[in-house]
Amino acid sequence: MAYTETEIDQFMQAAIDEANQARIIGEVPIGAVIVHNGEIIGRGHNIREHAQDATLHAEILAIQEACMVAKSWRLEETAIFITLEPCPMCAGAIINSRIPNVYFGASDPKAGVTGTLMNLLTDTRFNHQAQVTGGIRETECAALLQTFFKAIRAKRRLKKKNASNLK
Amino acid sequence: MAYTETEIDQFMQAAIDEANQARIIGEVPIGAVIVHNGEIIGRGHNIREHAQDATLHAEILAIQEACMVAKSWRLEETAIFITLEPCPMCAGAIINSRIPNVYFGASDPKAGVTGTLMNLLTDTRFNHQAQVTGGIRETECAALLQTFFKAIRAKRRLKKKNASNLK
Repeated sequence: MAYTETEIDQFMQAAIDEANQARIIGEVPIGAVIVHNGEIIGRGHNIREHAQDATLHAEILAIQEACMVAKSWRLEETAIFITLEPCPMCAGAIINSRIPNVYFGASDPKAGVTGTLMNLLTDTRFNHQAQVTGGIRETECAALLQTFFKAIRAKRRLKKKNASNLK
Repeated sequence: MAYTETEIDQFMQAAIDEANQARIIGEVPIGAVIVHNGEIIGRGHNIREHAQDATLHAEILAIQEACMVAKSWRLEETAIFITLEPCPMCAGAIINSRIPNVYFGASDPKAGVTGTLMNLLTDTRFNHQAQVTGGIRETECAALLQTFFKAIRAKRRLKKKNASNLK
């Protein structure tokens, strides 16, 4: 299913809303939604720190919910919208669940494997490939992360300063 | 922590036991365990079909249990024992959970990314690398899968034959 620019924008907004849910609870702000026939059937945001579980990235949670809603591990004819380029685990979960369309916002120079470090989703040695479109509302998606990490660094500096003042 | 050959054999047996749990319920027989300080802290076997969830591979379930037991998403100083070479999703989960030692049984020519199609766990562009040892009790691990798929093919042939007899 092909989406219009307005629809792509709208579904990425839903992923950004998810990322904001992560930000509010102090998690790295990354969000994802899965769309089938124009409807969101799975949502997720990163909860690694709260759950203390390395597997609970936004995409995994969105895929798990979508599988539950679809009553199938095969998410054919769906699209996933993610604020950040997927890591190997999440790209692998996209392969395993047969999601054919991937839209992401910001690129990830550290772990992005759908175009940046490599492209696992166009590698024909795996039994599934996906169409990948990056850079959707890139500035907003990247700003979410930049603001989050800037605040963390400022907090750390303040803590260090207060600690040295107490000496 | 370095393991003796006997220990490696014993932990792979626990992974094989998990694979057999999958086999008994009709799932592709793949199992995994995670070991910390000589004790198993996470176990998992493939339940993709029963759960209709593409993410529920043996390794993901073992990692989730180990994170819960360790009360941490960081599984440093652990080892994972898996009957089959990990796929991209599971290799990615190993990176994300910082597991330093990976032992697997059979190689996977279709999706194995810790030596066969590529090696995601020695790629220094990611923020974690792992020591990978393949071929542990390889014949038994491979036989589990071969027997499983042979039985499925035989069942399919019988079904086809019965259907044509009814015509």
